[in-house]
Amino acid sequence: MRSSFDLSLYLVLDPVQCGGHDAALDVARAALDGGATIVQLRAPEWHKRAWLALALDLLPLTRAHGVPLIIDDHVDIALAAGADGVHVGQRDLPADVARRLMGPDALIGLSVSNPGEVAEANGMQGVVDYLGAGPVYATPTKTDASAPCGLDGLAAMCAEARFPTVAIGGIQAHNAADVMRAKPAGLAVVSAICKATNPREAAAALRATIDRART
Amino acid sequence: MRSSFDLSLYLVLDPVQCGGHDAALDVARAALDGGATIVQLRAPEWHKRAWLALALDLLPLTRAHGVPLIIDDHVDIALAAGADGVHVGQRDLPADVARRLMGPDALIGLSVSNPGEVAEANGMQGVVDYLGAGPVYATPTKTDASAPCGLDGLAAMCAEARFPTVAIGGIQAHNAADVMRAKPAGLAVVSAICKATNPREAAAALRATIDRART
Repeated sequence: MRSSFDLSLYLVLDPVQCGGHDAALDVARAALDGGATIVQLRAPEWHKRAWLALALDLLPLTRAHGVPLIIDDHVDIALAAGADGVHVGQRDLPADVARRLMGPDALIGLSVSNPGEVAEANGMQGVVDYLGAGPVYATPTKTDASAPCGLDGLAAMCAEARFPTVAIGGIQAHNAADVMRAKPAGLAVVSAICKATNPREAAAALRATIDRART
Repeated sequence: MRSSFDLSLYLVLDPVQCGGHDAALDVARAALDGGATIVQLRAPEWHKRAWLALALDLLPLTRAHGVPLIIDDHVDIALAAGADGVHVGQRDLPADVARRLMGPDALIGLSVSNPGEVAEANGMQGVVDYLGAGPVYATPTKTDASAPCGLDGLAAMCAEARFPTVAIGGIQAHNAADVMRAKPAGLAVVSAICKATNPREAAAALRATIDRART
């Protein structure tokens, strides 16, 4: 469990969407400059050797910004790279197993998509650090995702959760302000930054929307 | 590096080919009764929670037979389950990383498909325990596999390798004797046991062919 982390603008970095290893590094650098507060590496189409190489190249960038680097699903890649944490879904390794393998200082995130999963997660004090709630909207990024929870579903999960909760799923510049009204701790985006023409400006605009929603 | 292991009849257990979790346990039990000497769990279509549950149910069976349980690709599942080792391919986590995460007592296997990969593996003393060479024949099991090496290619790799080397890829009852003439340390099979009407008899027949080839 990390002493502090900031879920405000959570970049899920998909290197395939970015255009490969080098392009993903460029996107991460730009997003960090634009105000991303946490970065997750998620490359479901890639083999692990490529994940590891990219994670090792990302760490100096995220460390320079004081931002955690999280690995999606694969605890072994996180351990091999020395990443700051892992994010697990309901069908991945159980969060308590991830915690045991990663140790007490790691940041552990867990995906939830309905109130039952939030209630179960609420029992995981000392195991889980934050929740990712969604998908808020339907999204082509994750084809095996649950049904969208919508803004009301998101608001209910955020109110119920005993952990900081980041919203995910179909979040783009045009709906970011709407999503913030459900009171998540932040917004997780994939294509809104990975596929942006200017990832730094895209991140800065999202960050401004998020900061504005809190005032 | 384990003190001893036997590659003679290496079952790659694909629970989807078997028909699910319970069917895979039945196949493993039958194959061990029939003479399988090592079991690898490989479920590329499955999420990790299902892998872990099956690995935890397999371990009492393999332990009762004094046979190692190897996890394909995923070091984190191997660590979580307390499995005996991992098998990595050329695009998975590097073998030295797997060794570092798994510790000195684990069994580490590495896939090779050509003489260059064998030569590179030969430099990994203390890291790798055995090689898996192939695919010998074209196989529908692994759609992203390298081109088949054939019997001559297999024989060349087995002669060159400084590690015990198990042959894999398209091996069935009807070609097992041919493959053994290339002098591998054993035969790895998937569908020949997982899809057999009688997995115990299929394993026993393969084991008899393997034992006969050595006399």
